[in-house]
Amino acid sequence: MVTPIDPTSTAFLLAENRSMPMHVGGLQLYRKPEGAGRSYVREMYESMRDTEEINPLFLRTPHRSLRTAGQLVWKPDDQFDPEHHVRHSALPKPGRVRELLELCGRLHGTRLAPERPLWEAHVIEGLRDGRVATYTKLHHALVDGISAMRLLASVHSTDPDKRGTPAPWGARPRSRKSSEEADSGTPLTEVPISALRTALGLTAEAAGLPSALVKTLSKGLRNETAAVSLHAPRTIFNQSITGSRRFAAQDWPIERLRTVGKATGTTLNDVVLAMCAGALRTYLLELDALPETPLVAMVPVGLNAKQSQIANADGGNAVGAVMAQLATHLHDPADRLTSIHRSMRDGKQALSSMTPVQIVAMSALGQAPAILTPMLRMQGIVRPPYNVIISNVPGPRTTQYWNGAELVGTYPLSIPIKGMALNITCTSYDGKLGFGLTGCRRTVPRLQRLLTHLDDEVAALEKAAGV
Amino acid sequence: MVTPIDPTSTAFLLAENRSMPMHVGGLQLYRKPEGAGRSYVREMYESMRDTEEINPLFLRTPHRSLRTAGQLVWKPDDQFDPEHHVRHSALPKPGRVRELLELCGRLHGTRLAPERPLWEAHVIEGLRDGRVATYTKLHHALVDGISAMRLLASVHSTDPDKRGTPAPWGARPRSRKSSEEADSGTPLTEVPISALRTALGLTAEAAGLPSALVKTLSKGLRNETAAVSLHAPRTIFNQSITGSRRFAAQDWPIERLRTVGKATGTTLNDVVLAMCAGALRTYLLELDALPETPLVAMVPVGLNAKQSQIANADGGNAVGAVMAQLATHLHDPADRLTSIHRSMRDGKQALSSMTPVQIVAMSALGQAPAILTPMLRMQGIVRPPYNVIISNVPGPRTTQYWNGAELVGTYPLSIPIKGMALNITCTSYDGKLGFGLTGCRRTVPRLQRLLTHLDDEVAALEKAAGV
Repeated sequence: MVTPIDPTSTAFLLAENRSMPMHVGGLQLYRKPEGAGRSYVREMYESMRDTEEINPLFLRTPHRSLRTAGQLVWKPDDQFDPEHHVRHSALPKPGRVRELLELCGRLHGTRLAPERPLWEAHVIEGLRDGRVATYTKLHHALVDGISAMRLLASVHSTDPDKRGTPAPWGARPRSRKSSEEADSGTPLTEVPISALRTALGLTAEAAGLPSALVKTLSKGLRNETAAVSLHAPRTIFNQSITGSRRFAAQDWPIERLRTVGKATGTTLNDVVLAMCAGALRTYLLELDALPETPLVAMVPVGLNAKQSQIANADGGNAVGAVMAQLATHLHDPADRLTSIHRSMRDGKQALSSMTPVQIVAMSALGQAPAILTPMLRMQGIVRPPYNVIISNVPGPRTTQYWNGAELVGTYPLSIPIKGMALNITCTSYDGKLGFGLTGCRRTVPRLQRLLTHLDDEVAALEKAAGV
Repeated sequence: MVTPIDPTSTAFLLAENRSMPMHVGGLQLYRKPEGAGRSYVREMYESMRDTEEINPLFLRTPHRSLRTAGQLVWKPDDQFDPEHHVRHSALPKPGRVRELLELCGRLHGTRLAPERPLWEAHVIEGLRDGRVATYTKLHHALVDGISAMRLLASVHSTDPDKRGTPAPWGARPRSRKSSEEADSGTPLTEVPISALRTALGLTAEAAGLPSALVKTLSKGLRNETAAVSLHAPRTIFNQSITGSRRFAAQDWPIERLRTVGKATGTTLNDVVLAMCAGALRTYLLELDALPETPLVAMVPVGLNAKQSQIANADGGNAVGAVMAQLATHLHDPADRLTSIHRSMRDGKQALSSMTPVQIVAMSALGQAPAILTPMLRMQGIVRPPYNVIISNVPGPRTTQYWNGAELVGTYPLSIPIKGMALNITCTSYDGKLGFGLTGCRRTVPRLQRLLTHLDDEVAALEKAAGV
């Protein structure tokens, strides 16, 4: 059965090119269950590959022909080849996290086959500590980043003894759905295509997506508040990019960051931004590439039902965007944190004073920078509206299992785009905040160093806060 | 320094698209030297990655700009990133040849990054028998298939105690070149860009490559000899292809094949073709897809200095092409071999009666089917001129070593193209004939089965020949 592709997904398919693949990814780390045999990983791979009933979302492929009047439509792949989509990979010795990140960077840097359903999953063995990793790649036209993380999480259970759970691409009959699953995430078929997409659809229906959106957007952006400032300096991140990727990931205990926040009267999200700000400052200083004026981060924020009060990053879908000044011109970590806190507060206030239509437009930046940046350029807005995207996607708070394997870490891989070569996405899980840094391999050299800088910055913030 | 790209290489760059990457590959298997430590493979990888002086060929990248008046030129990569090009990979357990071929198929199915030098090399560990593999990928614009195999072989030595040999992409100062190296293959800088390319250049200089070539070619092809027959049936191989690949490889003792040839009065190359013919027949029968009329293979053949007498596939550059009827309509292996022998003999005779210009044109089919097939189509030649390409590239006859590691097998990966989804290339080494079968993953299902069929066919031919 052929179904139409919604305008946003179509835009993601059309915006894609060799240097800008439009897929998101997820890296999951598991600890094998007790008593796992030597062939555990192979069995895990085979059970995933042999998933009997596939969710229709994972069977559809974009198709365009004379018959569809040149429009892109979804069509089921009538030659579905499980071995193409589900792959077994291994790390070379010594099997450190370094080798894993290298492999993920490589896998994230190749494009999905256009004639097939737009996803790939790798079961990865060879970590020297005996853990198993999975790397999953999903096209943004299939599912947006937040829904992708939810989807990957949706197969997990809080019950270590639960068995018989299919892979994320397995179709789960409603009758078999347990209450745990409903708790830990919404099955994909029920994930709303996000408040944003629906809202965009409504706007776009009448006047066509691009023009209506850009009109509202530039109006909102030219509103001279700090939150919507377009005065971001040029940095090495804001250049053309290539198709190859580097990926870095690490997690930190949320409690450490929260303690800094409590001692300084700032939010967890402020502390995350301060970590990134300090790390980016050190990184750019080392490359002798720190601009004089502070970097600006685009920070998607959650909105509650009233679309006004934004509590913190832990609530709701990210459907608003705040432009945060990262205070990278300041030397002192405490000063940077204070300045970021103020910038975020102003931004959220500005957001709360905006009309719902303006908020939707702002939020589009978070969902679709790749599409909007060229549009802004056409509108004569040529300087980068921001330097880097830093987002924080909430995840499950308790320990999760997949068929007895304990999920011990989860890290998002995102989409660098032309003019925005680095993306930082965090996701919380079980008391830890996992950072996933995805960059263009050529434009963002020595990306791994940012991990060290982030770690140093946590210590510096703790010292500054006196905790 | 910017240098112009010759017309043939330009054509390869322009003909490339997502479903038709234009790179050739080589899979090499090595046995570790005695006393190799646990970290032997890592050290091998690191020494290759850290190659100090790179051959300029491996530093150049295609570039086009206003300054070059829109023409493609070679430009050195001023941000050469060794870790991007030289990669360390591993096989999942159990580390059989099956896992190796699966990985090679995957690696061969991704495109080279266009903004970098057009090559990649993987050092692969994890084979359960302790051997080490390398998979090397080179763009056809950089070097043609035969030169690629020669280049990979050029670093080998017959001396197991020789050390200090750089990777194939290392620049070897002339002073250090030993006589062994000169014997086992010509260093790339001295490989003539093949008789063909030069000849093509001469033809193309006056009138432009495409029109002159096609004119000569169609004239040659319409010459109604068996050797240039265009009456190939339609098969599943002659369809559109996708970008994903499958690869199968295996070798057989040359002595076995030669014995069959001697007993039947046929050449080694005839026996190879008969193996392929029988295997393709069985494969297509299983899929219920064997056409009634016999398949036609395009077989590049070597020409000696006189460009007339073609002894066998072991001599000279492949600069002629014979269209061989594979007799797949015949049930009996002996009958097929006899028929193929006759077809090849007629083809070589026809070739010897052709003018040098016609031979050059014919030979272009072997070098550049991807470029020529669309041109033939434009000339109204819409049926496939042949069904499959079967070529045989001679390699070293004695045991070779790279820094003490014994080369135990070498297999070529070639380029499936639109309308020609399967390519069979053989290469001889140390008494064995290695077959490399490269196919479009979607168009040529269950490609691995051809290995079994090839093996069965050797036995069948031996039985038929009474040896």
